[in-house]
Amino acid sequence: MSSKITFIGGDIRMIEAARFAAKKHKEVIIYGFDKLEKNFDTYDVTIETNLKEALSGADTVIFGLPSSVDGKNIFAPYSSKDIPICSVISYIKPSAYVFGGMLKEYIQKEAETKGIKCFDYFLREELTLKNALVTAEGALQTAMTETPHTIHSSKCLVIGYGRIGKMLSDILKKLGASVTCSARKESDLALIECNAMEAVNTSLIGKSIGRFDIIFNTVPFSILEEKNLASVRHDALIIDLASKPGGVDFESVDFESARKLGLKVIWATSLPGKVAPETSGKIISDTVFNILNEQKVRR
Amino acid sequence: MSSKITFIGGDIRMIEAARFAAKKHKEVIIYGFDKLEKNFDTYDVTIETNLKEALSGADTVIFGLPSSVDGKNIFAPYSSKDIPICSVISYIKPSAYVFGGMLKEYIQKEAETKGIKCFDYFLREELTLKNALVTAEGALQTAMTETPHTIHSSKCLVIGYGRIGKMLSDILKKLGASVTCSARKESDLALIECNAMEAVNTSLIGKSIGRFDIIFNTVPFSILEEKNLASVRHDALIIDLASKPGGVDFESVDFESARKLGLKVIWATSLPGKVAPETSGKIISDTVFNILNEQKVRR
Amino acid sequence: MSSKITFIGGDIRMIEAARFAAKKHKEVIIYGFDKLEKNFDTYDVTIETNLKEALSGADTVIFGLPSSVDGKNIFAPYSSKDIPICSVISYIKPSAYVFGGMLKEYIQKEAETKGIKCFDYFLREELTLKNALVTAEGALQTAMTETPHTIHSSKCLVIGYGRIGKMLSDILKKLGASVTCSARKESDLALIECNAMEAVNTSLIGKSIGRFDIIFNTVPFSILEEKNLASVRHDALIIDLASKPGGVDFESVDFESARKLGLKVIWATSLPGKVAPETSGKIISDTVFNILNEQKVRR
Amino acid sequence: MSSKITFIGGDIRMIEAARFAAKKHKEVIIYGFDKLEKNFDTYDVTIETNLKEALSGADTVIFGLPSSVDGKNIFAPYSSKDIPICSVISYIKPSAYVFGGMLKEYIQKEAETKGIKCFDYFLREELTLKNALVTAEGALQTAMTETPHTIHSSKCLVIGYGRIGKMLSDILKKLGASVTCSARKESDLALIECNAMEAVNTSLIGKSIGRFDIIFNTVPFSILEEKNLASVRHDALIIDLASKPGGVDFESVDFESARKLGLKVIWATSLPGKVAPETSGKIISDTVFNILNEQKVRR
Repeated sequence: MSSKITFIGGDIRMIEAARFAAKKHKEVIIYGFDKLEKNFDTYDVTIETNLKEALSGADTVIFGLPSSVDGKNIFAPYSSKDIPICSVISYIKPSAYVFGGMLKEYIQKEAETKGIKCFDYFLREELTLKNALVTAEGALQTAMTETPHTIHSSKCLVIGYGRIGKMLSDILKKLGASVTCSARKESDLALIECNAMEAVNTSLIGKSIGRFDIIFNTVPFSILEEKNLASVRHDALIIDLASKPGGVDFESVDFESARKLGLKVIWATSLPGKVAPETSGKIISDTVFNILNEQKVRR
Repeated sequence: MSSKITFIGGDIRMIEAARFAAKKHKEVIIYGFDKLEKNFDTYDVTIETNLKEALSGADTVIFGLPSSVDGKNIFAPYSSKDIPICSVISYIKPSAYVFGGMLKEYIQKEAETKGIKCFDYFLREELTLKNALVTAEGALQTAMTETPHTIHSSKCLVIGYGRIGKMLSDILKKLGASVTCSARKESDLALIECNAMEAVNTSLIGKSIGRFDIIFNTVPFSILEEKNLASVRHDALIIDLASKPGGVDFESVDFESARKLGLKVIWATSLPGKVAPETSGKIISDTVFNILNEQKVRR
Repeated sequence: MSSKITFIGGDIRMIEAARFAAKKHKEVIIYGFDKLEKNFDTYDVTIETNLKEALSGADTVIFGLPSSVDGKNIFAPYSSKDIPICSVISYIKPSAYVFGGMLKEYIQKEAETKGIKCFDYFLREELTLKNALVTAEGALQTAMTETPHTIHSSKCLVIGYGRIGKMLSDILKKLGASVTCSARKESDLALIECNAMEAVNTSLIGKSIGRFDIIFNTVPFSILEEKNLASVRHDALIIDLASKPGGVDFESVDFESARKLGLKVIWATSLPGKVAPETSGKIISDTVFNILNEQKVRR
Repeated sequence: MSSKITFIGGDIRMIEAARFAAKKHKEVIIYGFDKLEKNFDTYDVTIETNLKEALSGADTVIFGLPSSVDGKNIFAPYSSKDIPICSVISYIKPSAYVFGGMLKEYIQKEAETKGIKCFDYFLREELTLKNALVTAEGALQTAMTETPHTIHSSKCLVIGYGRIGKMLSDILKKLGASVTCSARKESDLALIECNAMEAVNTSLIGKSIGRFDIIFNTVPFSILEEKNLASVRHDALIIDLASKPGGVDFESVDFESARKLGLKVIWATSLPGKVAPETSGKIISDTVFNILNEQKVRR
């Protein structure tokens, strides 16, 4: 392919995403990273300092995760200048494809008025799944760093058996931990047993919570509030991995009560970008190219 | 509980189900197994030879899987006499709960006219999941028995990444096989990669099918027809695990073409009852009690 | 390599070994299989019916496992004629290498008098290890076939933590069984715990033996004698995998007592040749070539 | 048991060891930790500040790991005062048992002159094995922390297939890495294959070293010297886990050449005490009690 791909803003993951893109494509541009040290390694990625130049003739434009925080500018923590959404849209050619994470409706509307096709890569199941895996590894790393004992032989509770709960419990079990998972549905409890772990109904967690060394919360509900926290062992570690649907961070654990009880709670959200920016960048890049390929097949 | 539980007909799994039920309940009756050797071990289960007696006062009545084949009689391969559905219904008291696998609509309708509550345990996700696990083990056993080599180091293809595909590929990988899984959806392909196996799009299977020692089909579609079969290695083993939605057996593999090509194909459906009747009976028993417990909570 | 390799006698594994050899070498001959159906598939292996012809000019001569049973003839269950050791030796050229499994001293002595170098491939650790793996898979297959329940969720005891005990317990655990291993040395008990399984001292097995569904014995000592057997559950399965040092079969389980107690005991020795002759043949072939390569490096 | 157990010096692991000892024994004393914050939690362990008092009547005396560094005093990094070996010995009663890690010969001799029995717990295989497991987890934690990608999908090389190499490679594989192990002996190479990983002869490592993301060295030989390092990818991570036999730290990797080549090398020795002091303390405590139990059986 001889197309031009331009990355506008986003965090460090987008540089990695651009690098992976550059392995397959000739012209890959990034814009919005001038605050990073000048000599960061860009391999075959071209750094462009003029926004119009960066977008001129681009077939594919990719924003970060999230695409925008304030609703006016593209999210670009490493850019010294603001990047107004309206300017960006005005420089993109009508036949281009635009990709963003948590792409706000107004960006989509404005772009589509011009005939630009918009896609939110954060809505894609393959990205969600692979991010869950990175989160699970990050949770393991956090647990290893924050405890004076091994994961092997430790008693772990994983609250919630969604994507992250499944992958995390699997990893912990493979490392030799004794793993209990909680869920509410009979079918999830059955699946936990199929995976050879102990299953407990989330509503009955209080009864057994006192026997765990490490407690991972993956559900965005208030399971770990005062009453249940009071039964937690005082030398246990609680790691909160839950984020509200839509990706907004949210303290599922009652931190105030935990502090009063002297419990150690770690609020570990947005792990993928922190613990493995390279892998996270690759996941975004792969997802964007999956969408592009599907579009080509349809045409 | 001091309730009376009666099992009517079904295959050997229902005797095992009755035994598990008898571990928790005082009065457990079975009817419809007089063709089995007289001295089969029934522990705390009572064999009743009179249908009316068996059902008299029963709070819970459980049929086999399926409940009926001909639409007139309860499925009872080990009974020397027919067991007419209408007689059975007439002997059940109105407040009773009736459970059956693939319970036909007309049985439900007739029972519910009398005020009897009916439940099809085969529709429950926890039974489907646990049966998938038994099927996966049965598929492994079949592969071990039918090949002159170990699973370890063998090259396996699992077509389809539903419940059975997931569990089977996981087992094969743990035993040291080199495992490739096929799926159609990007999200399933991503999950296969998350599980550290090679992913291939089912539509492109033909390209690589020639390098596998064992091919497991889990999808009820015609993937393994003449064209793809022609590329299969002549010493490979094909195991067909697919059944049509609704549980009706269905030859997904083109057996005729396979025979002409000299390929070894094993049609391995309904494995749970064959390879592990005891576990299968326990699964049915557990599922019935899950439903009963939910009913009690609701009352 | 343009050398001539001749296989003399042995069981079905040697045909598989010859086939693997033929993938790398031009001239591979087998002799001693005339009782097998004429049209068995030999690929690039040449069947020779004249012993002298078969051995004439051979650089490498390979006997089966064991090489001889009666001390006079080469072990050749599929040969209609006896194959006298002295004739074989007389036809082999002095610069040749001779390989055999459990090669008796007198064969070695006689061959070495002529200047022929002899090697016992059965003494090689890599063959022992890989055979242990095949045995572990065979033990799993046997357990699956002989029980009405799944390996998943079953309670397994593995007596002895040598090569087979290690590999078998690992497989059972991965399939979701609850696995206890017994050993005598503190270091082995520690290793069992490192591998996240329950460890029990072999001398104290009697105390807990009543809670297991499947008991695998891997040690050639009388652990499972009357006293311990009396505590075994009557529906448990016992699989005896032990063979005396040197490979001689030996009933480690007290079969007489087991029978009186109504226990189901399976004497499963020499599994590799039975459950996976192809893999077993490859192991022998690989081992012979390892030895040959080492000899070349030394020269 | 109503015996008195006294811990003298050592690092933070010994406090943990004392705590585990106090779970089973009434009188557990520690001496030599006055430099630690006063209010560190000692549960049922008594802090004694007078050496003579601490040792008076003690049945069991336990030193740290190592027992002594300078040959004159007991190793006690958290003690504000020196603890002379000769004083310690003079206060111990003749019937006592003394345990130390890497117990120097002169300590043993002096103690045994008085009739005191001495044991070096660091020589015990169960301690070595369990420490290897802690080291493997610590190596994983280090790799996770020091790389911008996940362990899943990364290409790992583990040089050496001893205790640490075995356990580390097993963990990496379970986390979804692609793992290659190197060894020199055919039997180790066979075992690597049995464990479903790629095996490479250590002497041929140079040929393929360029394809790995993470390289773990576990052997105390100079494998990673200039020539091999030159082929390593510049974004790879090298983790050196080797220590000289006897436990003396030793830089197996040529750090000078690595620095010149711009490679990232982490020298990660003595991991158990750093990443999991609690578990390490338990291992020491368990080992000491294993030895004590064996002594009682012999008496």
